Formats: sequence, structure tokens, C-alpha cells
Amino acid sequence: MTRYQHLADLLAQRIEQGLYRGGERLPSVRTLSQEHGVSISTVQQAYYRLEQQQLIVPLPRSGYFVRARKAEPPIPSMTRPVQRPVEVKKWGAVLELVSARQDPDVLSLGGSSPDLTQSTLKPLWKQLQRIGQKQQEAALSYDNLAGLVPLREQIARLMVDSGCQLQADDIVVTTGCTEALSVAVRAVAQPGDIIAVESPVFHGILQILCGLNIKVIEIPTDFTTGLSLEALELVLEQWPVKALITVPHCNNPLGFMMPSARKRALLTLAQRYDIAIIEDDVYGELAYEYPRPASLKSADRDGRVLLCSSFSKTLAPGLRVGWVVPGRYLDRVLHMKYTSTGSSVLCTQLAVAEFIAQGYYPPHVRRMRMLYQRNLALLSDWVRRYFPETICVSRPQGGFVLWVEMPPAFDAVALCQQMKAHNIYVAEGSLFCASGKYRHCLRLSYSMPMTPAIEQAVAAIGAAVERQISANVEHIEPAGGEVKR
Amino acid sequence: MTRYQHLADLLAQRIEQGLYRGGERLPSVRTLSQEHGVSISTVQQAYYRLEQQQLIVPLPRSGYFVRARKAEPPIPSMTRPVQRPVEVKKWGAVLELVSARQDPDVLSLGGSSPDLTQSTLKPLWKQLQRIGQKQQEAALSYDNLAGLVPLREQIARLMVDSGCQLQADDIVVTTGCTEALSVAVRAVAQPGDIIAVESPVFHGILQILCGLNIKVIEIPTDFTTGLSLEALELVLEQWPVKALITVPHCNNPLGFMMPSARKRALLTLAQRYDIAIIEDDVYGELAYEYPRPASLKSADRDGRVLLCSSFSKTLAPGLRVGWVVPGRYLDRVLHMKYTSTGSSVLCTQLAVAEFIAQGYYPPHVRRMRMLYQRNLALLSDWVRRYFPETICVSRPQGGFVLWVEMPPAFDAVALCQQMKAHNIYVAEGSLFCASGKYRHCLRLSYSMPMTPAIEQAVAAIGAAVERQISANVEHIEPAGGEVKR
Repeated sequence: MTRYQHLADLLAQRIEQGLYRGGERLPSVRTLSQEHGVSISTVQQAYYRLEQQQLIVPLPRSGYFVRARKAEPPIPSMTRPVQRPVEVKKWGAVLELVSARQDPDVLSLGGSSPDLTQSTLKPLWKQLQRIGQKQQEAALSYDNLAGLVPLREQIARLMVDSGCQLQADDIVVTTGCTEALSVAVRAVAQPGDIIAVESPVFHGILQILCGLNIKVIEIPTDFTTGLSLEALELVLEQWPVKALITVPHCNNPLGFMMPSARKRALLTLAQRYDIAIIEDDVYGELAYEYPRPASLKSADRDGRVLLCSSFSKTLAPGLRVGWVVPGRYLDRVLHMKYTSTGSSVLCTQLAVAEFIAQGYYPPHVRRMRMLYQRNLALLSDWVRRYFPETICVSRPQGGFVLWVEMPPAFDAVALCQQMKAHNIYVAEGSLFCASGKYRHCLRLSYSMPMTPAIEQAVAAIGAAVERQISANVEHIEPAGGEVKR
Repeated sequence: MTRYQHLADLLAQRIEQGLYRGGERLPSVRTLSQEHGVSISTVQQAYYRLEQQQLIVPLPRSGYFVRARKAEPPIPSMTRPVQRPVEVKKWGAVLELVSARQDPDVLSLGGSSPDLTQSTLKPLWKQLQRIGQKQQEAALSYDNLAGLVPLREQIARLMVDSGCQLQADDIVVTTGCTEALSVAVRAVAQPGDIIAVESPVFHGILQILCGLNIKVIEIPTDFTTGLSLEALELVLEQWPVKALITVPHCNNPLGFMMPSARKRALLTLAQRYDIAIIEDDVYGELAYEYPRPASLKSADRDGRVLLCSSFSKTLAPGLRVGWVVPGRYLDRVLHMKYTSTGSSVLCTQLAVAEFIAQGYYPPHVRRMRMLYQRNLALLSDWVRRYFPETICVSRPQGGFVLWVEMPPAFDAVALCQQMKAHNIYVAEGSLFCASGKYRHCLRLSYSMPMTPAIEQAVAAIGAAVERQISANVEHIEPAGGEVKR
């Protein structure tokens, strides 16, 4: 047996015996090397072996942590939203969440900005610098309404990965995925119309529909297979639905990946009832499996799918470079784009086009996928360690958000208020619903570097959840207890 | 008498005698210097004197031109649009015009992009470069929903010139003036509502209203004093108008400047009928008079004015940095901004904020104002020289568009088609109207460097106008003429 195997076995035994507990930090490489009289690289090899065995997890710049031994919490069961058209409200709460991302004192697990600290993003800066140096006049004039042609060519190339064979002319560049979704919705529906969505659904989508006076009908959604097609069909039979908005890959907020067979069935259903499908693929490139699953758009035979995406989750949101592949709705989408922002900023389009053309995109996205998957392992462990056992959690297949479901009586709105006093922001579930459901749920983001401060924040949230649940239990005990006092 | 005075008098005499005709190029400085045996600077001084006397006009990199002696064409009389709510269409023609700006072979006098070739714009490149060098992470994350605070502070400072005392918090940054107008309209009106506009009106405004299914009622407008308040009042009495969109300064397309007394009266009227005013001030800084006139917003006592503007005409459209000062509609505007693009691109906001903070803005705008005023002198001369005498033209007080009115039977749509065959694009009048009026008018832009190619284009347009008018005259002559042949 080699030295590192020996050391690994010894550490595994100690973890087994509970000498190092789940979530606890292990001794540093240097300490172990001195303690056991072995080289640094032997300790590193031993830790690597334990990582392979999924006993520990590395945390960049912080060391190695023991993975939780507690049983994994169950997956929540299929959601049960109100299945009739409702109007969207809740703008106040969303505004508060959006504003929180500006405050440097706030520790936000509620947002969904990606990690911007990685070195693989640096060539993007070089591109911006180059545009400044070369003083390309092209970066100052009005853009082609559909967006910079070289960028659209690069996007077409990238989209081959999701099974799409596109030309630059099939793509319209937008100001982020928000504008992509907004123009797509305006291309297929009028105020007063009904659009179906998964439930829960990203609050930004709800707000877009709210801003356009479009009614929403929420479809029950499964945590592993996505949208219930059966429920959708019932709704389509009953209501004059114009379109469905779906996030079939690395769903935000539930993290599921819609299976291929169900995607095909969804397209058939859309044809039968003649509805448009708006496919939000903004997290699609961050699927943990490789190659990434094929988009709905790739199997769209009659142009009824409008694929919306952006570089906001894969590169950086401040670039505001998004796009739509509008299929048969191209003319309408161009018109709506013209009336919404005219054209898009050029220098970020130029920078992104060059970043991709020079081959920097694939290694960056590969790194981010791995990073988020590792962050998920850590966050799951912390949630298991610090939250009570009565919770259910999602199993994200990509992206960087985790959905946590508490018992039905739980009040996540109150929890969020409490946490805000400690400068910790989380997103409570009812933001993701037009009919006020999911008040007992939380969405936690794990895109940021998983520092000890984040662990402390998760611990604080977990403790507050525990306290509220215990208080609830006391609260529903027979009133006799009070009288006896 | 000095040498240069002598030379100037001689040249003036020759112009007077018709030896040099209006619009003709004068001999080069070098030629005159050799011919008359005087120094280069003497000739330059002589030319400067003639320029002061408004006898000649300099054309950068092309020499000096004789100003037309032909009488100035009259100003068109007040417009007479259809005064009932109409739906907006015409998207196809606008798309064609917008797409033309992309083709390098096309000589476009139909667009409204500013001159981007001036050296005073160069510090903007330096700023972009600096952002790339410093790798400011702030440029990549999600922006504050209302926009970058330092930029809003600079905008507030600039707006003192238009009489506004604002804080950063009063301002919402947008993706160009298009998004500013779009969110402002969505903040004050719903689909199906009626909004009043000047007539003619910038086609982008019409398309925004079309995209939002808002009906338009067009108000008669005078070429020197703007919107007819009398006509507006009649309309407000008769129809449930929600808002007025007005371009009171350096109006696009008519070029007028609304007098102060009329602006006050307009605000009183808006209060009496409780309508919102959307003030499009995008050309306001390009007023030829200095200081620029006070905005409507500056006299707005109850927050009913939403001022919309951008740096697209003063700096560069590709930056897509615009803003709204929404008054009492701040909350609605923020909500609509969130649902339209989420937030705005950061690197161009950072670059513009620094450009202004470092004092580069006032000298740049000063130069552009002078440049456009000089361009206007040249274009007016060319129009006088090459167009038939039966036209009327506007008297722009700022900005860079000229309105030309031909006799009523003229067909500018046909003219545009003809010119397109020569790769010359102009904007025909009916684009600026929801009810199909102004088909006998043209809008010519004079923002581009006034090269000999532009002169040739104006000559070609003028000749085509002349041909069509002559053909029309023949056409309405008694049919006998034909029989005689």
C-alpha cells in the first residue's frame, strides 16, 4: 500500500468514526504533512482520493470539508398551483430583491448573478481594451437592428451544441435575456391574453407578463421531469392559451432537466393546440452533464418555438448580450425589438464575438459548470447539516439555484424579513408564483465563491428555519398547556 | 486698405456679378495665393471675412462654397393632420430605412445618426480602454436597476443647463432614448388608450405606440412655434387622451423651438385636462442658440412631465445610453424598465460618466452645434440651388434634420424608390404620420460630413424632384396636347 493510500484510509476511518463531522473543515495539507511526516504531495493525493470517494469536498482557498453523512432530504413532490388564469403582482418584493444586489454589505443568496472572479473571463477585458485602442467607429454607430453579424455567426456556431443548425439571420440580438423574453412574449400575445408557465417560475418572467398585462396560468411541475404534460393538456382544452413559457434545461428555480421523450411530446401538444413555445435556455449551457441536452428549438419543425437566451449566466450579466431565435415570428420580434430599445450596445457585442471567435468560450463554460457542481455539493451538505430534517430539496442538474421546501405551515416571508436584519438576503418561494403559493419555500443561489461567510449564512438561515418550525409545533399543541402555567 | 480686404472685396464683387454662382466651389487658397501673389494667410483672412459676411461657407476638407443668392424658399404653413385617433402601421417602410444605415454603399440622408468623426469624441475611447485595463468587476455584474449612480449624478449636473434641479435618484438610465420613450409610454398608458403627438412626428415614436397598441391622435403643428395649443385643447375636450408626446426643442422632423410662453401654456393645459407629458429632449443640447432653452420638465410643478433623452445624438448612438426623468411615475417606470431589459450595459455607462466628469462633454457638444449649423447653411444652399422653386423648407433651430415640402400632388414615396436605385436613401414624409399624410414631403439629414458626394446626392434628388413636378404639370394639362402630336 502506498503512503497516500494509507493516509487516505486513516482519514476515511476517522470520518467514519465521527471524529471529523459532516461539514467540518479537515486539517490543512501542511499540518497533515508535518503530523504524519509525509510530503505535501502525498497529502494532496490522499485528499484527492477521498474527494473521488465523495467523502470530502474541496473549497477553493479554504481547504477540504467532510461531506455530510446525514441522509439526503427527499425531493419535493409535484407542485400544485391554482390552475386558472391569474394576474401577476408582487412587484414590490421583486424590486427589494433586485435592489439588494447593489449593497456590498449584503450577503445575497437570493440573486442569480454568476461567479465573475474566474481567470477564464479575463480575455473579455482584453477585447474591451482592444475596442478602445482601435477606436472602431463601428462600435459607436447604430447597430444592425438584428444585432452585430459576427456575433450572430458565433452564436449560431455555439448553438450547434444544443442541436440547432442556424444561420446568423435566424438570430436577433437583444439587451439580455430579459429583452429576449419581453419581445418574444410581445410577438406572440396581446394584453389580456393567457400564457401558460411552469410553476414555480422565475419571477422575472412573471414580471414581464405583469408589465404587459398578460394573464398567467401555472402548470403543475415535477422536480425531475418538469412540466406536467397531462395538466398542460387539460389547460389547453379549457382555456384559449396563446403560448407556453418553459425553462426545460437547468430549470430556474427547480433545477430539473426535461427528458427528451417529454420534450417531443410537448412539441406535439403545441402543434395540436397551435400554441407558441417560448423556450428560456439561459442556463442551458450550464448543464452538469456533457454534452448538454438538445433544445426544444432543435426539434421545432414549424417555427413555433422562440428560443431565448443570453450570456448573462455563462459570461457576465453586465454585458447585457442576449438573443432570440424567433422562428416564424422573426418579423414581429424585429418590430418589437425596434420599439423596445432600437438597437443594442455595440462594444459588448464586439467583445463577446471576439471572445468566442478566439476560442475562450468553451474552456470558460467548462470551468464554470464544474465550479457550480462543486458549489452545489457544498451547499447541499451545509443545508443537510444546518437545516432541520423535515425539509425537501431539489436536485439541480445544472445552473446554480437550489429549491428548499419546508413544511406547509412555514412562513418564508417572515424568515426573509428576519434574515434581512442580519444582512442576509434569500428569495422566498411566493415570488415565483402569481397565485401566492410556495410561501413555505426558499430559493438559494450557489454561484458565488463558497466562503466561510456563506457557510455561516446558511447556518444562520437553517437555525432560523429550525426555530420557526419548533415554534409552530408548540403553537399547534393543545391550548391546555397555556392554562396549566 | 489691407491686402486681404482688397482680395475679399474683389471676390465679393465677382460673386455679386455672378462670375461665381451660388453653391459653386471657389478657387483653392493655394490657387488664389499664386494668382494674386499674396500669402496663404492673406487668402485665408479674405475667405474668413467673406464667411462673416455670409457670402461663402467653408466645407471641411473640400474648400469654400458660394452661398446661394436665390431667395430663401418659404416656410411651410401649419400642418393639417387627421384629428381623430388612428392606429399606426407602416413598419415595413421604417424597417427598410433602418436597415439602409448598415449598407456601406448607401448614401443615407434619411437616418439621424450624428457625426462620429470628430476628435473631441476620442476621450470616450480612452475610457473604454481604461475599463478593459482596470478589469473593473463592477462593469460585469448586474447594474442598479435605475442605472449607474455616478452616471446619474453627471446627467443631473448636465441638466442644470435646461433649468432642471435634479438628484441622481430622479433619473432612470435606459438603453437609448427608444427605451426611455417606451417605458415612459408604458408607465402612463395602456393598450387601446389614446396619446396625442405633434404632426409630423418622429417615426420611432409612432412605431413605439404601434408596438404597444396605443392609438395616436395627431395635432396640427407650426414650423416656428410648434404644436397648436388651440387644436390640442379641442382634442382634449373631445377625446380621453392619456398623454402628449412632444419634442419641443430642435424638433425632429420640423426643427422648431417652442417659445417659452407656449410651453407654460402647454403645462397649464396638461394640468387642466390631467394628462401626462412625455418630453423628448434628445436633440435639446444641439440647439444653435446658447444657452439652450429651458425644458418643459424644468417648469413641471406636479411631476406630470416625463423627460426622455439620450447621448445618441450628442455623443454616439452605439453607446445606447439614455435616460428618463419620470417625475411622479418613477415606480411605474422602474417596473417597466425591469420588464423591458432588466438593467443596462455597464461599460458604456462607466465610459460616459467619466467622459463627462473629466469635462470633455461641453467642448464636444459646442463643436457639434457649430458643425451642424454650418452643415445646415451648406445643405440649405444646395437645396436652393438644386431643387425647383416651388418647394417650402423648414428653418431648423438645432439638431440636424431639414424638412422639405413639395407641391401637394408630389409623390415622395415614388421619389425614394427612384433614388434607392442610385443607392441614395431619403426619408419620405408619410413615415412621420399615422394617417398617411406628408407623402409630398422629405426629411433630409445633415449630420454627416458634407462631402462633394453629398452635394451630388442633393443635386440628384433635386433633379428627380424637378422631373416629377414637370411631369405632373404636363399630366394635368388638357388632353388636347396629346391629340395634337
